[in-house]
Amino acid sequence: MLQFNIEKPKDEIRSYLQEKIDNLTKPKGALGVLEDLAMQIGWIQQTLEPKVSNPHHIVFAGDHGIASEGVSPSPQEVTFQMVANFWAGGAGINFLARQHKIELQIVDAGVNFDFKPEDPIIDKKIRKSTRNYLHEAAMTEEEMALAIQRGADCAQACFDKGCNIIGFGEMGITNTSASALWTACLTDIPLKDCVGAGCDHTGGIMEHKYNVLKQAKENYKGDNSTEDIIRYFGGYEMVMAVGAMLKAAELKMVILVDGFIMTNCMLAASKLNANVLHYAIFGHQGDEAGHKLVLQYLNAKPILHLGFRLGEGTGALCAYPIVDSSVRMINEMNSFKKIQVTKYF
Amino acid sequence: MLQFNIEKPKDEIRSYLQEKIDNLTKPKGALGVLEDLAMQIGWIQQTLEPKVSNPHHIVFAGDHGIASEGVSPSPQEVTFQMVANFWAGGAGINFLARQHKIELQIVDAGVNFDFKPEDPIIDKKIRKSTRNYLHEAAMTEEEMALAIQRGADCAQACFDKGCNIIGFGEMGITNTSASALWTACLTDIPLKDCVGAGCDHTGGIMEHKYNVLKQAKENYKGDNSTEDIIRYFGGYEMVMAVGAMLKAAELKMVILVDGFIMTNCMLAASKLNANVLHYAIFGHQGDEAGHKLVLQYLNAKPILHLGFRLGEGTGALCAYPIVDSSVRMINEMNSFKKIQVTKYF
Repeated sequence: MLQFNIEKPKDEIRSYLQEKIDNLTKPKGALGVLEDLAMQIGWIQQTLEPKVSNPHHIVFAGDHGIASEGVSPSPQEVTFQMVANFWAGGAGINFLARQHKIELQIVDAGVNFDFKPEDPIIDKKIRKSTRNYLHEAAMTEEEMALAIQRGADCAQACFDKGCNIIGFGEMGITNTSASALWTACLTDIPLKDCVGAGCDHTGGIMEHKYNVLKQAKENYKGDNSTEDIIRYFGGYEMVMAVGAMLKAAELKMVILVDGFIMTNCMLAASKLNANVLHYAIFGHQGDEAGHKLVLQYLNAKPILHLGFRLGEGTGALCAYPIVDSSVRMINEMNSFKKIQVTKYF
Repeated sequence: MLQFNIEKPKDEIRSYLQEKIDNLTKPKGALGVLEDLAMQIGWIQQTLEPKVSNPHHIVFAGDHGIASEGVSPSPQEVTFQMVANFWAGGAGINFLARQHKIELQIVDAGVNFDFKPEDPIIDKKIRKSTRNYLHEAAMTEEEMALAIQRGADCAQACFDKGCNIIGFGEMGITNTSASALWTACLTDIPLKDCVGAGCDHTGGIMEHKYNVLKQAKENYKGDNSTEDIIRYFGGYEMVMAVGAMLKAAELKMVILVDGFIMTNCMLAASKLNANVLHYAIFGHQGDEAGHKLVLQYLNAKPILHLGFRLGEGTGALCAYPIVDSSVRMINEMNSFKKIQVTKYF
């Protein structure tokens, strides 16, 4: 599998960043999260004048074999229908991308549908849906390596266009199930606490969902390595996001993480290379049961709490203007030295 | 004192708004706070296609006689210096207003400084600083009526320019003290719980601040009416904001409320006319001790929690893109009827 060379940013610049932030015309610390974000981005970019440039957002779409076990009340066809809705511009992620002037890319990682060559989707399809992990591994080792590689290629393509901040989201019916298994297998959080209602607002599916996932976890006989866990419980769109995150960090890009599923991709990425976390900004903590727990596990402080449970990257993109604000703050605010203001508290 | 005729928006439209929101291509409720905001703004504007138009933000600035008691570690001169920083474009509120394309207005409500006629500030000055409410009322009845009227005029002027959403912020050294007294006198929240560190990150001033405010509250011998409380403990910038909020609601504008001080202005406005609350969106819950308590008292759910304690309206403006997103959601997302997506959960 592709290896990534991710550097921890050098710490020398942090004291200079702190000094600059503390000398902006405001009481020390008074812009809270904006100050934390300016520090992180300045540290990543190793500059006192950090910038966000040509932001991109990638939605990875894929289907899951486990859908045949009825773990979601939504039919699998919704995945490809929503992909069509993305390119028609009418989904949740679209109005946010337009509003914040973020270039949106829709990637077919493994949707169970034959798109036409002329359809406006980036074709990185590994296979039409993963296999059913209740009975067998979701993907082969070759497929997984390919998904990691193709994800990395997606991040590289954004970087090559001058992008230095990239959001990730997903579309894949039942992918909260795969995410719950990733959390339960990659951390010490019990599966029970990871299984949420998904996008089902009624919660009626949860007991059945838990029982199926519990059985799937019991059936698993692999070596418990991160590689094997994410391969077995799959999600081509999820593994592709892992590859994209690792590559983005290697390229020193800022990574905007969305909800439960993308947080699990960051979790898996961090198990493969812990340095990836330095590049991650967590956009939103959603209502999905396990999300808060994974975020705590990662010591992550999400920017927003807006009660979203949609995916696509909607939580990440809603946080984007706040990230943008943080670099504007450090670049545009006057210092006490520059303008005649008594340093106040 | 000026009276305001604020209507509660008609409820008939709510079921139509809910139906429209529920038929957008997402699971029911999956866009959380955006759905709540779209409902509120559609209800205020009595339309299924709500809009935010020509947004304005007003910063009311004023000084407080209580400053001579040392309740803030920051000297009073910071108020006029920061006003100059606002018009120089280098303060916290400036980069946010530029980022979100919000027209910023700086109003001198009662700054203890003689600005020049050519200074780019809206002159609504009542007096150079309020009086010291440890010993006497902060303002006279005539001054208070004038402050309410001038605040209303500010809101009207924005409305006349086609603005239908207006943010409010403030600058005034020691105005967390006045706010703590407003909360304690207008609610059943004990003064002790309302006194915070203000913008003082060290917290070293708090005991002295509490003792002074406790004495001021004990010295007060008025009739405990809302009018008398806000007049006595003053803040020309605060009373002017109350007038502006009441007028904005009368004009059916959406009101973006900032932090502790502006939340207290909304509290006072709601005691004068409870219908004003229907028009209020609370942008941010800050760290100031009493803020959470006042928000709870008002049953308000702030959009953001970013740890700000700066004022100026920075919390309100950071929330603006999320408000904007909510109207984009209801106007721009496809419905299940319009595009071929199976209604999912």
